[in-house]
Amino acid sequence: MKDQLNIGIIGYKFMGRAHSNGWRQAPLFFDIPATPVLKAACGRHEPYVRAFADKWGWEEVETDWKKLVSRPDIDIVDIALPQNLHYEIALAAAKEGKHIFCEKPLSMTSRQAEEMLKVCEDNGVTHYLNHNYRRTPAVAYIRKMVDSGQLGRIFHWRCAYQQDWIVDPDFPLTWQLRQDVAQAGPQWDLNSHAVDLAHFLVGDIETVTSMITSFIGERPVADETASGSLSAQAQGTGKEKVTVEDAALMIVKFKNGAIGSFEATRFATGRKNHLTFELYGSKGSILFNMERMNEFQYYSLDDQAGQQGFRTILATEPEHPYAGNWWPAGHIIGYEHAFVHAVADFIKGVAAGTPVKPDFEDGLKIMQVLEAGLESAEAGRQVTI
Amino acid sequence: MKDQLNIGIIGYKFMGRAHSNGWRQAPLFFDIPATPVLKAACGRHEPYVRAFADKWGWEEVETDWKKLVSRPDIDIVDIALPQNLHYEIALAAAKEGKHIFCEKPLSMTSRQAEEMLKVCEDNGVTHYLNHNYRRTPAVAYIRKMVDSGQLGRIFHWRCAYQQDWIVDPDFPLTWQLRQDVAQAGPQWDLNSHAVDLAHFLVGDIETVTSMITSFIGERPVADETASGSLSAQAQGTGKEKVTVEDAALMIVKFKNGAIGSFEATRFATGRKNHLTFELYGSKGSILFNMERMNEFQYYSLDDQAGQQGFRTILATEPEHPYAGNWWPAGHIIGYEHAFVHAVADFIKGVAAGTPVKPDFEDGLKIMQVLEAGLESAEAGRQVTI
Amino acid sequence: MKDQLNIGIIGYKFMGRAHSNGWRQAPLFFDIPATPVLKAACGRHEPYVRAFADKWGWEEVETDWKKLVSRPDIDIVDIALPQNLHYEIALAAAKEGKHIFCEKPLSMTSRQAEEMLKVCEDNGVTHYLNHNYRRTPAVAYIRKMVDSGQLGRIFHWRCAYQQDWIVDPDFPLTWQLRQDVAQAGPQWDLNSHAVDLAHFLVGDIETVTSMITSFIGERPVADETASGSLSAQAQGTGKEKVTVEDAALMIVKFKNGAIGSFEATRFATGRKNHLTFELYGSKGSILFNMERMNEFQYYSLDDQAGQQGFRTILATEPEHPYAGNWWPAGHIIGYEHAFVHAVADFIKGVAAGTPVKPDFEDGLKIMQVLEAGLESAEAGRQVTI
Amino acid sequence: MKDQLNIGIIGYKFMGRAHSNGWRQAPLFFDIPATPVLKAACGRHEPYVRAFADKWGWEEVETDWKKLVSRPDIDIVDIALPQNLHYEIALAAAKEGKHIFCEKPLSMTSRQAEEMLKVCEDNGVTHYLNHNYRRTPAVAYIRKMVDSGQLGRIFHWRCAYQQDWIVDPDFPLTWQLRQDVAQAGPQWDLNSHAVDLAHFLVGDIETVTSMITSFIGERPVADETASGSLSAQAQGTGKEKVTVEDAALMIVKFKNGAIGSFEATRFATGRKNHLTFELYGSKGSILFNMERMNEFQYYSLDDQAGQQGFRTILATEPEHPYAGNWWPAGHIIGYEHAFVHAVADFIKGVAAGTPVKPDFEDGLKIMQVLEAGLESAEAGRQVTI
Repeated sequence: MKDQLNIGIIGYKFMGRAHSNGWRQAPLFFDIPATPVLKAACGRHEPYVRAFADKWGWEEVETDWKKLVSRPDIDIVDIALPQNLHYEIALAAAKEGKHIFCEKPLSMTSRQAEEMLKVCEDNGVTHYLNHNYRRTPAVAYIRKMVDSGQLGRIFHWRCAYQQDWIVDPDFPLTWQLRQDVAQAGPQWDLNSHAVDLAHFLVGDIETVTSMITSFIGERPVADETASGSLSAQAQGTGKEKVTVEDAALMIVKFKNGAIGSFEATRFATGRKNHLTFELYGSKGSILFNMERMNEFQYYSLDDQAGQQGFRTILATEPEHPYAGNWWPAGHIIGYEHAFVHAVADFIKGVAAGTPVKPDFEDGLKIMQVLEAGLESAEAGRQVTI
Repeated sequence: MKDQLNIGIIGYKFMGRAHSNGWRQAPLFFDIPATPVLKAACGRHEPYVRAFADKWGWEEVETDWKKLVSRPDIDIVDIALPQNLHYEIALAAAKEGKHIFCEKPLSMTSRQAEEMLKVCEDNGVTHYLNHNYRRTPAVAYIRKMVDSGQLGRIFHWRCAYQQDWIVDPDFPLTWQLRQDVAQAGPQWDLNSHAVDLAHFLVGDIETVTSMITSFIGERPVADETASGSLSAQAQGTGKEKVTVEDAALMIVKFKNGAIGSFEATRFATGRKNHLTFELYGSKGSILFNMERMNEFQYYSLDDQAGQQGFRTILATEPEHPYAGNWWPAGHIIGYEHAFVHAVADFIKGVAAGTPVKPDFEDGLKIMQVLEAGLESAEAGRQVTI
Repeated sequence: MKDQLNIGIIGYKFMGRAHSNGWRQAPLFFDIPATPVLKAACGRHEPYVRAFADKWGWEEVETDWKKLVSRPDIDIVDIALPQNLHYEIALAAAKEGKHIFCEKPLSMTSRQAEEMLKVCEDNGVTHYLNHNYRRTPAVAYIRKMVDSGQLGRIFHWRCAYQQDWIVDPDFPLTWQLRQDVAQAGPQWDLNSHAVDLAHFLVGDIETVTSMITSFIGERPVADETASGSLSAQAQGTGKEKVTVEDAALMIVKFKNGAIGSFEATRFATGRKNHLTFELYGSKGSILFNMERMNEFQYYSLDDQAGQQGFRTILATEPEHPYAGNWWPAGHIIGYEHAFVHAVADFIKGVAAGTPVKPDFEDGLKIMQVLEAGLESAEAGRQVTI
Repeated sequence: MKDQLNIGIIGYKFMGRAHSNGWRQAPLFFDIPATPVLKAACGRHEPYVRAFADKWGWEEVETDWKKLVSRPDIDIVDIALPQNLHYEIALAAAKEGKHIFCEKPLSMTSRQAEEMLKVCEDNGVTHYLNHNYRRTPAVAYIRKMVDSGQLGRIFHWRCAYQQDWIVDPDFPLTWQLRQDVAQAGPQWDLNSHAVDLAHFLVGDIETVTSMITSFIGERPVADETASGSLSAQAQGTGKEKVTVEDAALMIVKFKNGAIGSFEATRFATGRKNHLTFELYGSKGSILFNMERMNEFQYYSLDDQAGQQGFRTILATEPEHPYAGNWWPAGHIIGYEHAFVHAVADFIKGVAAGTPVKPDFEDGLKIMQVLEAGLESAEAGRQVTI
């Protein structure tokens, strides 16, 4: 096989930077069978994408994504864009035989997801969906513990993904708050991550009951031309309607009999990127908090009576997946490292022709749960998937 | 008014001890207008109640609660029994003109609660429902902060009450697991506390969506004659059906637009008496954990940018209600102290002829929410109260 | 032997209250071979001691301690006074054959301590020194773990006892800040506790190196007639010299080769009663914090690689000494409970004629270490005990 | 000035990797006036250094450091080697007019440090000493808080740097445990960082009292040819003498009247890279823990009474130095990011001709304190610097 793989990226904001860093760092810290080459970056605004490409070392620039995905020298298409653009691009890229590294959430609807999966499979391309939190050393290790039976039968999944970046009513109406671009609010953006983790660690979800709510109905129009993060400026004095929910809560039953809860919000004052989950099983329990992503907590019923307690484990040991590739124990890694891990595994999968999870099949399942949540909230009743 | 009030207590197990301690300690640490006199203790098994009375200083013993509540020398009836016995006793006591100090949860049904409230009102007696967590210094202070507007508009209430005392399938079928005695499982026992706190700190609940589940269907028969705690022994080899749920989850909307979640379970391995709540508002947020009941956490948007964070406040300062009556700052109090505070406030209320909250009116509202939860879980749809 | 023991207490402020509570509560929660009778309370100011006795149930009042200790009906003398008064009273009490329950620190000097010990031994009385922190369930359990070898060889003891009640320069010159009453500042008040715990958990100290310092040289004169806590009022406008140190730091070597550090201060802004220690051994480690006295943390090298971490253990289980006498697991106890435990053990020791540790022998050793610290600080060199 | 600066690095193990990453990442995340070019990597073992250079993108390889430092195309010499090699290389590099980026600790002795400083100053080169912890967003921000007077007068500095990588007596005698290479144990390796932070945040140290100790006297011979971390293999069966201390404790007085403590050890079981410090001042206090380097805690006496507490501040906001260059608030960074920050500031300093702190002047002061510590421990008395 090739020892170099040419990447074409579409998008140059927050995720464009995080993905670029992933492509660059992966070969430095991981033994991977092919080296990713940052071949071309694509965006509609030429000066912005040019500046981005110069900074990050993308060799060339494109302003039309259709041109990019049809370039014969491109092996991999990296979709680092909002979800309303995934469907069309993924379909085109797959039909061109490109492997796809796609930012989450997968799509606007489960119907899109279904088609994206089918076209990828039909064209035999690798399709990866970037729910990167799976690839923190802590979460990857927790999965191993669950698989080994250390927690026994899982009773409870308790999860919250809390942020506070729109508590201020003067925060403008960025794309994340518009249904036409984002499809939904935290249900799509945050609960997609949370449901992915629940599928990864507990199993498939069967029944969903949900409530969603809106706290602030109108916001100033946003100027977000060059924004690459969760900050934005208001533009002028007009106001527009917020067309997605502000918070989304779900209670679910898993097929294996476990029960779970999800809480996603952008109105949890003081919480920045506070994704926490709790797993309670018949032999032990585990807690995780993304803001302290280098740690997790584990309670074992096997410990001696009187000495049982939640252990705070620093997941920086050689036993913890990915951690040994970085620094000695006790030296923590950051948010973007999970992207590096994803890139390393993706390159390995592409090289070996094996799936890289989570993929569009997983993404489809996530979409089905998220849609069931919206449906349940609207109908005021349980929905079985 | 009298400077002594004669107490008659019914029940001598876990709550009998905790209440007795409350009656004894209150006058030592609080200035109260009347001294409670431990006049008579009542229980069906004479030797047990006798031993209890001797240890705790109850002057006399009764074995028939009807006799106790009709004794002219009794001013206050303390109902320290399971919920299936509250209704009949409270009605009789109220009709005899006794003030009532009643353990939670209030009753088996909201219909009982309604009648209990009415009879107490008709007879002009003070009726107190012992949701004692309101009277930890931290929670009492949090209420003051909410009232003063420090949190602004409340967006989210997030609450879990987690225990693990029945994870072991060989743990026997104690009364708490039998519908005829307990009415329900954690929905009654734990969520009653949680809903009381939500009412106290956020406001009335309007809509409820719920799921309940059962993890272990049968258990050994229990021998709990003399048990005073959450431990028990199995008796013989037979098994009986568990007739209450093992876990109960609710999502609610409050009348004021806030959204809330409740999770109550006895299957959270590693959690002993882990009642936690989170309050997120437009100006600040608060976190509380009953296992660290001397602390709470507060995040203020008024703090300087770059210096905002959750403060861990040790609620042992003179500013924190009740705390100044105990020890210097930094010297913590324990679980049973909230009972002492409840007794002190109850005595004041009885002396002044003013209500002592929470009372049966609050208990009725709690019952309505809990019943709506069970109804929602069964019907698989939202229920509006 | 007697089934009642008559107590005479001297002192009615902070420690008078805490001790009285101990005498009252012990028989309610512990099976003890004799019941303490609150026979007489003694203090110089008759109205104060009268009010105290009435509130706490002391049967009689004395205003001359010499009279109290010579009363034939008194079995036990409880010295709840500042350290400058211990020596004379303990000697007199012992000579009268009274058993002694003595508040810490033991004395003003090691010479006093030596004599106090000798006279007690000569007169065959039980002598208990109230370093009560030993009797929290967590610390008592930690001692069992150390004894069982779970930590292996101890390498490090790291301890701080931090308070902040005199950071304000206008806080007046209470007795704790006067050398004639207190002998020293945090070295006596706080490090006496810390050294007791080090002796209890690690072993005897051999060599001491110390630094002490003073931050505020003069303070307003205090009015502390009725004070029962760490708060006080300034009186008038005059200022007086602070004659004790404000902070005292020690590094020590233990006889068994471990190395240790102590830091005691009243100038740690934000710390109220923050006694923390860390124990690092060849097989495991333990952390403790008195402000979270119901918990401790334990790290075990026996845990599986990748799963080692500090466990937060809630010391409310039946396995934890004293805890099972209170409430079910997860229901915490408070600061004053350690006094109750001390009383229970003291009564047992008196009844059995066995020593109750720590006693004056332990107190003498503590005094020797504390004196060595002051000597080292003054001389600027290590001191071997 | 040049818009490119050519780097020559000496050393390719743990620090070689961390520095290389710094040179590569700095221009991606920071606006810097010149781009560092990874020109040449130097090491004695050609195959190792070649593999390192290939992986990290160093253009050329040298095996003789003297040759490297005299190459005219090299602008900056990066000394990523143990401390026994710093002196000779730094002197040669400075004399060649190269700017120096030097790993810590600065040198073997203060005499070396003095000469290194003088030669750098005489040759007008920029000299930076890589105590990188200063450049975590949290620590950099804490310095701003101290400078602004938010803590008031500092009373206490309490610091521990605890690791556990040599608790196992079979861990071999790596270079860090040999006096001829390392000069000292944790006193050099760990306390150099700690003293740098104390100088940075509190001020100069005046008086030192110290104890050091050794727990394990002999260890297996090490095979560390290719090691790049704190792990190593034993080689054969022989044992050699450990010639550095295992733990080093210091108590100090600062020139400004504050008092401080330091505890450095490799025998704190469970601690991996656990550098913690506490700063207590007359207006507030601050806590920091390097294993949670994205956070710090702050207590303010300006907060309302009853609401004072240690705030856990997530230092990922735009206000926190360096943080805004990475990801949105709540998305944490890792250990190696401080190296990126150091590189960015170093490039700026070199371009502007301004000092980059800490520099060899700071390093000299640190050496003086560390030497005073060893002297005090040996002599058993206080040493004034």
